[in-house]
Amino acid sequence: MQSNYTIADYLVDRLAGCGIDHMFGVPGDYNLQFLDHVIDHSKLCWVGCANELNAAYAADGYARVHGAGVLLTTYGVGELSALNGIAGSFAEYVPVLHIVGAPGTGSQQKGELLHHTLGDGHFGHFFEMSIPLSVARAKLTASNACQEIDRVLREMLTERRPAYLMLPADVAKAPATAPVNALTVEPAKADNNALEAFTAAARQMLTPAKRVAMLADFLAQRYGLQATLRNWVASQPLAHATLLMGKGLFDEHQAGYVGTYSGAASADDTRAAIEDADAILCIGTRFTDTITAGFTQHLPVEKTIELQPFSARVGKRWFSSLPMEQAAQALQLLCEELASGWTAPASQKKPAAGKFSGTLSQNYFWQALQDALQPGDIILADQGTAAFGAAALTLPADASLIVQPLWGSIGFTLPAAFGAQTAAPERRVILVVGDGAAQLTVQEIGSMLRDGQKPLILLLNNEGYTVERAIHGPEQRYNDIALWNWTQIPQALSLNCQAQSWRVTETVQLREVLELASRRQRLTFVEVVLPKLEIPELLRAVTQALEARNNMH
Amino acid sequence: MQSNYTIADYLVDRLAGCGIDHMFGVPGDYNLQFLDHVIDHSKLCWVGCANELNAAYAADGYARVHGAGVLLTTYGVGELSALNGIAGSFAEYVPVLHIVGAPGTGSQQKGELLHHTLGDGHFGHFFEMSIPLSVARAKLTASNACQEIDRVLREMLTERRPAYLMLPADVAKAPATAPVNALTVEPAKADNNALEAFTAAARQMLTPAKRVAMLADFLAQRYGLQATLRNWVASQPLAHATLLMGKGLFDEHQAGYVGTYSGAASADDTRAAIEDADAILCIGTRFTDTITAGFTQHLPVEKTIELQPFSARVGKRWFSSLPMEQAAQALQLLCEELASGWTAPASQKKPAAGKFSGTLSQNYFWQALQDALQPGDIILADQGTAAFGAAALTLPADASLIVQPLWGSIGFTLPAAFGAQTAAPERRVILVVGDGAAQLTVQEIGSMLRDGQKPLILLLNNEGYTVERAIHGPEQRYNDIALWNWTQIPQALSLNCQAQSWRVTETVQLREVLELASRRQRLTFVEVVLPKLEIPELLRAVTQALEARNNMH
Repeated sequence: MQSNYTIADYLVDRLAGCGIDHMFGVPGDYNLQFLDHVIDHSKLCWVGCANELNAAYAADGYARVHGAGVLLTTYGVGELSALNGIAGSFAEYVPVLHIVGAPGTGSQQKGELLHHTLGDGHFGHFFEMSIPLSVARAKLTASNACQEIDRVLREMLTERRPAYLMLPADVAKAPATAPVNALTVEPAKADNNALEAFTAAARQMLTPAKRVAMLADFLAQRYGLQATLRNWVASQPLAHATLLMGKGLFDEHQAGYVGTYSGAASADDTRAAIEDADAILCIGTRFTDTITAGFTQHLPVEKTIELQPFSARVGKRWFSSLPMEQAAQALQLLCEELASGWTAPASQKKPAAGKFSGTLSQNYFWQALQDALQPGDIILADQGTAAFGAAALTLPADASLIVQPLWGSIGFTLPAAFGAQTAAPERRVILVVGDGAAQLTVQEIGSMLRDGQKPLILLLNNEGYTVERAIHGPEQRYNDIALWNWTQIPQALSLNCQAQSWRVTETVQLREVLELASRRQRLTFVEVVLPKLEIPELLRAVTQALEARNNMH
Repeated sequence: MQSNYTIADYLVDRLAGCGIDHMFGVPGDYNLQFLDHVIDHSKLCWVGCANELNAAYAADGYARVHGAGVLLTTYGVGELSALNGIAGSFAEYVPVLHIVGAPGTGSQQKGELLHHTLGDGHFGHFFEMSIPLSVARAKLTASNACQEIDRVLREMLTERRPAYLMLPADVAKAPATAPVNALTVEPAKADNNALEAFTAAARQMLTPAKRVAMLADFLAQRYGLQATLRNWVASQPLAHATLLMGKGLFDEHQAGYVGTYSGAASADDTRAAIEDADAILCIGTRFTDTITAGFTQHLPVEKTIELQPFSARVGKRWFSSLPMEQAAQALQLLCEELASGWTAPASQKKPAAGKFSGTLSQNYFWQALQDALQPGDIILADQGTAAFGAAALTLPADASLIVQPLWGSIGFTLPAAFGAQTAAPERRVILVVGDGAAQLTVQEIGSMLRDGQKPLILLLNNEGYTVERAIHGPEQRYNDIALWNWTQIPQALSLNCQAQSWRVTETVQLREVLELASRRQRLTFVEVVLPKLEIPELLRAVTQALEARNNMH
């Protein structure tokens, strides 16, 4: 065995060693040789997707649940199709390794006019196009492959963002030696002086404070602080919230949890609990336009402490060489010391429990979904009406929400749901996606059915791009889409379809279907018919802000 | 009216002035303001697609039929999804203008953390990623827009390759003055000395020749030489062929036409007629791997004359500043003078006329399709078994073939067929696409039905990536795909479906369906069941060459 060990084997062993057990992608003639080694591997499972963009989204969804993911494409045609997906992973800090099977080294050196090239004999174009979307990358050769694989994987796992490997067909088959030790990723170290100075400055700000709030976001999740923060808010009287991207970080039934913060578009008590505090701990936050209703957050620099992945701020002062984890530990200790003097936050209002009935509206839909949520659910809500509606949900214990509000690529969640369900077959996946969005990436419903997955898919049919209508041109023809027979989609995309499909227009029907779906006996596809122009409240505030800004600049 | 005239209006007027009457794309909030002006325009028609890659393919298919095309996407998410399509247009010389609606100038200058960005405040990443895929590009501003639009369009039309415009939302609405004159594109001028030297060298090579052959390819088509070449071969005893990419350039019933040249994988008489000539005129050829069965062409430099877009070669000697059109004119005149001494080429064998019956095979399928072709048909054959099977067809008068053998992105032809049918509603479009390929881009069947198109779609169902099986891993799981209910697809993708769907396994059924489809009363979707491992003869030679090369280097 060992004597036939190749670079391909080394790469798959390293991936498996990092705990990655599924590889998403599409075969192509430059990656088939490598794929033989993937198929033969005992721990890594190949998951073919219908196209490369979908595969990139699936790898991203998998990585958001599992910690890291991997995508395999072929040179040129395959890798370029995947770039939008990789860019989303880059923007939102999701570590996905993009492996590209490339033409043989000899052909590259000779500058041959191969298929999947631009016909100019140059083989560096696509590598260069991936530079802005990756934190590390390598062109593997027979002599550098093992060390470059290790370097690239290390950087990807440290920075929590995508990396890129170009793997020529001949290099995949070149001999290698199996790794002896597991890949080590050393945690970033804090500079002691910076840590002390940071702690002193934080003490100065926090000592006079009576009300302290915590606003955490997705970077806290990505850098592994979820458990730390949950313990922290459970032991101290801290009003706490997340932005939309970080939703799911906290136990939303914990005392002191005050909801999803969205700047001026927040619920009044959420906004007040955060903004009116004497000091606000901003942990892993990025204040991007859509999740702040157009930068309407009011968090003056003088009363905020901010932790970023590798630096921290107190008031106007930045401290570098200060990884988030160590800064958080120091800050938590400091708060423990001071918290006895703090005012406990008001407890959150319970969501209205009224059981609405009648023709479905946005309001009734979200209420019914709220009531149907179960502990451990993974909810994916596509950019558009879905994500902004989901912001108002109260998540049950151990539930996760996957949204993509920074990159905001519509259609992302459908393949991401396939990836998430692959990562966590035991958890229930609920996908909430609009009709316009689902049309971009619908094929992966076929992959879900092929693999026997049983997610709940709620297709919000409002006849087009409702989020765009809300921003501009509500009745313009460009916001219409081709109208599909949605309930026939699962049957069309699977030869032995095990799905059940429903079309619901009444609240009571939706509740019945959600009840049935709770048994998880098969993939459940529900076409939810909603008014064409109605949008969730939060989205109205956001879209008004965006249109105003488009008109202003 | 004129007082409200904007840069958006200028751009759409310029496009219409270039004869472009359809714009493909997907709306997004950064391009909605511009789209208002597209919708309002009297000559330009908006064609929404299900996703951006499909839209790019559709614009490419439209441009291949119509001469040039235009694609509209939104910043980041939209444009990156389209890159693979644009790269295909670039590799294969198809002029498509890619317009990207971008965030407002003020937001860009401030480096705001907007959605659809990487969250780093930089707005140049995606512009830079498009550099290798475009011959001209501009970031439009309120002051440079009109002249930059003209420059970029001119370069695109001269070079016959894609160009890129970044159009910030505020710039689209900025005031402009309507163009007074049509956009002028001056033809490239020949250097007179080069032309004379070229002609003298060609005379020296051609004077002793008794048998002269012409091998033309796609660049001759792209640079407008189709009529010239057709007249040329009609008036002189020239054996002539194209490579696969240029198929359709000649009237295939013209005396002297000898078939599709594919290097060593050519039919014997095709190969001999070209390679055994005393001199060979190579016009607009690019010898890429798949269309030459792995560079097996035998065309010694000493007996070839080669015309490229802006230069020419006789034997080993290159002449620059010599546009293809002028070089072709000079060469044609020279041949006219010498042709009286040439040996007439043998007439081509007629294709076997036997009407096969029984269970469908590759051979029977292509025979039935051959018999069903009509003058003027536009045939699109996807990379894979379809394109290489189509190489052996004899096209009827004025028929066109669209293939993509250099870039070779599977799934391309389905949206390209939508674009081609949009460009030429009066012609019959025939799409031949494999099941694996169709899964990548299937959504655009919905757009065809929405727009009332009636193409004939022949879906070759051979249960997976048969072309990949032929190259490597015939029974490997990665070459399997999710199995779909193909005949249900048109009904699922249209609410008021006007399609008819068939599944055929017998030759006689296929012939009946093709007969029905000839009436063009509705979109006809035919699932053609073919053996899983069978491939056209030419493809076998090609794939063996590719696998050998993958193993070699």
